[in-house]
Amino acid sequence: MRIVVDAMGSDNHPGPDVAGAVLAAREFGDTIILVGDQAQIEAELTKQDTSHLALEIRHAGQAVSMTDKPSEVVKSKPDSSMHVGLGLVKAGEADAFVSAGNTGAVLGIAMLRQVGLGRIPGIKRPALGVIFPTKERPLLIDNGANADCRPEYLLQFGLMGSLYVERVLGIENPRVALVSNGEEEGKGNTLIKESIPLLAASGLNYVGNIEPKEFMRGAADVAVTDGFTGNIMMKTAEAIASYMSDTIRDELMAGPLTAVGGLLAKPAFGRVRQMLNPDEVGGAPLLGVNGPVIIGHGRSNAYAIKQAVAQARRMVAHNVVAAIAAGLATAEPAPVSSKEVL
Amino acid sequence: MRIVVDAMGSDNHPGPDVAGAVLAAREFGDTIILVGDQAQIEAELTKQDTSHLALEIRHAGQAVSMTDKPSEVVKSKPDSSMHVGLGLVKAGEADAFVSAGNTGAVLGIAMLRQVGLGRIPGIKRPALGVIFPTKERPLLIDNGANADCRPEYLLQFGLMGSLYVERVLGIENPRVALVSNGEEEGKGNTLIKESIPLLAASGLNYVGNIEPKEFMRGAADVAVTDGFTGNIMMKTAEAIASYMSDTIRDELMAGPLTAVGGLLAKPAFGRVRQMLNPDEVGGAPLLGVNGPVIIGHGRSNAYAIKQAVAQARRMVAHNVVAAIAAGLATAEPAPVSSKEVL
Repeated sequence: MRIVVDAMGSDNHPGPDVAGAVLAAREFGDTIILVGDQAQIEAELTKQDTSHLALEIRHAGQAVSMTDKPSEVVKSKPDSSMHVGLGLVKAGEADAFVSAGNTGAVLGIAMLRQVGLGRIPGIKRPALGVIFPTKERPLLIDNGANADCRPEYLLQFGLMGSLYVERVLGIENPRVALVSNGEEEGKGNTLIKESIPLLAASGLNYVGNIEPKEFMRGAADVAVTDGFTGNIMMKTAEAIASYMSDTIRDELMAGPLTAVGGLLAKPAFGRVRQMLNPDEVGGAPLLGVNGPVIIGHGRSNAYAIKQAVAQARRMVAHNVVAAIAAGLATAEPAPVSSKEVL
Repeated sequence: MRIVVDAMGSDNHPGPDVAGAVLAAREFGDTIILVGDQAQIEAELTKQDTSHLALEIRHAGQAVSMTDKPSEVVKSKPDSSMHVGLGLVKAGEADAFVSAGNTGAVLGIAMLRQVGLGRIPGIKRPALGVIFPTKERPLLIDNGANADCRPEYLLQFGLMGSLYVERVLGIENPRVALVSNGEEEGKGNTLIKESIPLLAASGLNYVGNIEPKEFMRGAADVAVTDGFTGNIMMKTAEAIASYMSDTIRDELMAGPLTAVGGLLAKPAFGRVRQMLNPDEVGGAPLLGVNGPVIIGHGRSNAYAIKQAVAQARRMVAHNVVAAIAAGLATAEPAPVSSKEVL
């Protein structure tokens, strides 16, 4: 396999991105193509043991920042590492693209006709699926690609999410649910209420509405939501987890006995952190794009980048893109008319 | 003061509701009017020391359950404890109403012309404000009264929230923010983007968009959101906090050393739980209703009910309802036209 890693993606690029690519090349034996500023990439590589690894570099003269507006960067930085990297996948020179950079920019550039991959035919909106790092590992989709959604989008998110967890996580007949503010009939906003009949008639294993608590405990394998709500959910979860960790640490240090207790309990805290660590799941699949694309967290370290490459490999190996295209062709209700596509 | 407590509100009613009313009567010296099934209330009161307390009982022949549909219960249970209790406030026989019951039902019954309080003139939609139980105690509004919102509603939520925290929490010139999926300009869904200019021109101390992390850390005193997103945020926060607590407990018990550590660290965990305990803040003000109404958590214990009564007292003492009516009259942009009201 040949996987592209955006060397200019993470908040602290290119350090974690390059180090993660090296880890991935060593662990998986695949070819990793690092795309970005050649001099910077080479400087990072000198810090690593790269002997016998299949690492390539493709120079890209520009880098997209987290604060760049996706709508502008698509045209203003035509030589960005995202343009070059996605172009390699489009041209068939690589199998997948991994970036810990600006999600909106990756999406926008992937959609460009000239350099990008475009959508899978029939897909209205690509969506970001994120595997939630609790023990049950449910998939939340969309996690921020689409701030405003229609019921038809949510139907397709359910289909794409279902095929992804079936193929990549090996879950048979995945349970699909809508995230809502209550499980009872009649709960939800207009979007959710209008999406229920579509999901119910879809042929997917739709199990109803779930609240965040049930989602976390794995009451569904795929939880469908609009990108605004999904993003707020993920960010709230991260914020509370970090707030609690900080508060517990502060409180433990407030007295000598509790400090001793904290020291003794350290391995337990380590396992909790591990369990809720987004680095473990390593990146979110951008589903609906006509090629395997994985987005990592901006705060990714080398390990998280390596895990994101692992996700990309599974997406390629299990042919998720083709599965979505095929699933869309057979899904009920009938696929969208061609004029609605693109 | 005379405060009504819905004896049939909490999940385990009437035990916690009656015990909480007794605590409140003792601590505050006010008259507490318990509304609900007289026999059940009297049975609970025999378990308590009620000497020298100003407790009254008003019988109501029906009780609203958490699964009752608000739209139906409004008419199907005209003798519910909520109808009777809110009617006492409407009739001037009580100053405020406290219930740990079905939020939608309280709201629906409060809006009824015959028995309810109606809206403060000019208010388009009442909203549930909830004080987030981190150290900084920011107010999140709306927390579930309105699943679908328009920008004009969010503007009024900001106004009501601002007046509430100013009056009740004593915060001068409160910072008001919109909850969004990013702080940068251009982030947000259509509702947020259309609400920004309204908030910016409102005369409120609008400080921009905040993400959940900044909200929790108190970057604003009032965080405005639609009721669907707000409810998902609160439920996600509760779910993660409870998931983490459970996981930490399980992990601590997994080995003898970590168990000893956990024992020594217990006081620290107690303080963390206290800090994040929704019972502490005791109930959410239903703002925009033409009378003080506080909604408690369904899982409220006696202490939480007592704290909810404390909130109701502050709402009465600081004249929040009148302040909102006055604030609305002077707020920019001009108050809504009378045809839009009720």
